[in-house]
Amino acid sequence: MTAAPVTSNTQTLDFVALVELLEQIFIRHGTSADVAKTLALNCAGAERDGAHSHGVFRIPGYVSTLNSGWVDGQAVPVVEDVASGFVRVDAANGFAQPALSAARALLVEKARSAGIAVLAIRNSHHFAALWPDVEPFAYEGLVALSVVNSMTCVVPHGADRPLFGTNPIAFAAPRAGGDPIVFDLATSAIAHGDVQIAARKGQRLPAGMGVDSLGQPTEDPKAILEGGALLPFGGHKGSALSMMVELLAAALTGGNFSFEFDWSNHPGAKTPWTGQLLIVIDPSKSAGQDFAQRSEELVRQMHGVGLKRLPGDRRHQQRAKSAAEGIALEAEVLANLRELANP
Amino acid sequence: MTAAPVTSNTQTLDFVALVELLEQIFIRHGTSADVAKTLALNCAGAERDGAHSHGVFRIPGYVSTLNSGWVDGQAVPVVEDVASGFVRVDAANGFAQPALSAARALLVEKARSAGIAVLAIRNSHHFAALWPDVEPFAYEGLVALSVVNSMTCVVPHGADRPLFGTNPIAFAAPRAGGDPIVFDLATSAIAHGDVQIAARKGQRLPAGMGVDSLGQPTEDPKAILEGGALLPFGGHKGSALSMMVELLAAALTGGNFSFEFDWSNHPGAKTPWTGQLLIVIDPSKSAGQDFAQRSEELVRQMHGVGLKRLPGDRRHQQRAKSAAEGIALEAEVLANLRELANP
Repeated sequence: MTAAPVTSNTQTLDFVALVELLEQIFIRHGTSADVAKTLALNCAGAERDGAHSHGVFRIPGYVSTLNSGWVDGQAVPVVEDVASGFVRVDAANGFAQPALSAARALLVEKARSAGIAVLAIRNSHHFAALWPDVEPFAYEGLVALSVVNSMTCVVPHGADRPLFGTNPIAFAAPRAGGDPIVFDLATSAIAHGDVQIAARKGQRLPAGMGVDSLGQPTEDPKAILEGGALLPFGGHKGSALSMMVELLAAALTGGNFSFEFDWSNHPGAKTPWTGQLLIVIDPSKSAGQDFAQRSEELVRQMHGVGLKRLPGDRRHQQRAKSAAEGIALEAEVLANLRELANP
Repeated sequence: MTAAPVTSNTQTLDFVALVELLEQIFIRHGTSADVAKTLALNCAGAERDGAHSHGVFRIPGYVSTLNSGWVDGQAVPVVEDVASGFVRVDAANGFAQPALSAARALLVEKARSAGIAVLAIRNSHHFAALWPDVEPFAYEGLVALSVVNSMTCVVPHGADRPLFGTNPIAFAAPRAGGDPIVFDLATSAIAHGDVQIAARKGQRLPAGMGVDSLGQPTEDPKAILEGGALLPFGGHKGSALSMMVELLAAALTGGNFSFEFDWSNHPGAKTPWTGQLLIVIDPSKSAGQDFAQRSEELVRQMHGVGLKRLPGDRRHQQRAKSAAEGIALEAEVLANLRELANP
């Protein structure tokens, strides 16, 4: 995530107004009302929480993708109840978030009954942050883990050419004394959205993030985007985790690997057509003290050894700020959104 | 893992003979026959596969721990069938591997029936590699993930002092064309066993692995072991994963966090008294093509972009070599083992 630029030319609007504006944009570009609502809440939530690389910055990509016919904005997900702990969803070439919404109640019911449950989403397009998919489970007292694969742009450690996606892992756990513990980490050294933002701003990247089209290390975000590729975070370990994400989010769901889809006939398409896996655990089945009390104790000890900020803290603080002051958008960005809503 | 030193003073013995020798050592130091068998197979398997930091190198630590009265070598694990996808085990202050063995059949039955199942082991001591716990599931066609927390020796990213353990994550998945895909990675920048081996050999470590007792970066393994600490791999991302391991392996099992146990009254104790979590998924519940065929396709593509070696390959190659040529041990190491078996 990148801090929003502070300019005098900023306008604020409240969360509900931003959601409505984004809904209008989605509907105007061919999605159903349900899909528009789900995506608008997701995208406005990211903007509100300061996760700008997954906020309104993504709207032009959604629009060009819908215009290209690559994704079905009207898709109705098909939920399959496979076993006492296993739910599948065929997203029907639609977005992943409506597929999760359609299966969510069944998934929670199974997790509370079986103690653990898995949701395997396939034939889906995920173009958003992953933490909004797991955080709500933690507010319901559940522990959630999710992985999603994306599109070939990461060179496996020890290989020469890209194969994996940025393949994020997100985790959320309830906590007695405050907001849940939530993280969302790309298994690439940097998120693709952050490379795009750096390129747009003309900023250089730190070393070790990516390679150019010749496979040589580069700090130029444009060189990465134009024929280059990203590296995994943490060398062979991050690479192993990225491989695991391919296996869980694609092989185990029946979705595409990050290298399997071909959007060349859909200019403007930006959304990876892959799969997503969620695992939800009910910690009330655990032995010993209440889980949320235990996670609070861990947080207390983390602060005790000098940790200033927990994963997720910045988002929760920005959320509170946005609730109090509204969501600040550059005037030009807001004007563009309004134009997309009323062309 | 560190390569075995090649010396002229090496003796070989076969796997069965090594297992028997280690069994004798465990029994002589107070374990039950069942516990001895389980630990001997585990430790000899690591040595056979070239995972020397978890092979016979660990035997003196097991022995001093048993002698200290810190762990109960006679413990009988108590298996609790909690829900259709949830098994708990109280390891009763014994080792983690016998607890897994005791619950394994029930865990597999639940995973095949519910599609996913979780095993929460608490009150347990894990002093071995983690991949031997997950790999056998993959040979049975199942996907397995495990985490175990250890003892305070890793400084959370952004903190000043250590709190987390080395907290490994291990994963195994079946593969149609060969041995399973298996990895086992410490969320610390380096495994504790490898620091100990480097210290014993007088070798320096690469930069970024740890800090000394003053919290300053050091490449001296002894400075890390004597009051210093390790760093997480991959900065804030590895640190977040290490925190997740604490939550899953301790808070969710009812086990101790890495910072919670006190072995000061047990000089010689080396084994962390914590918890372990395993998640097992039955990929036959997945949509689409057979999982093992899909993972084989991923492997094929990984080789296609220039990857020479998969995670786990080196172990499987060394396993075949050991089967053909026997397991090579330094004569002095073997003599010490024989003395421990027949004191």
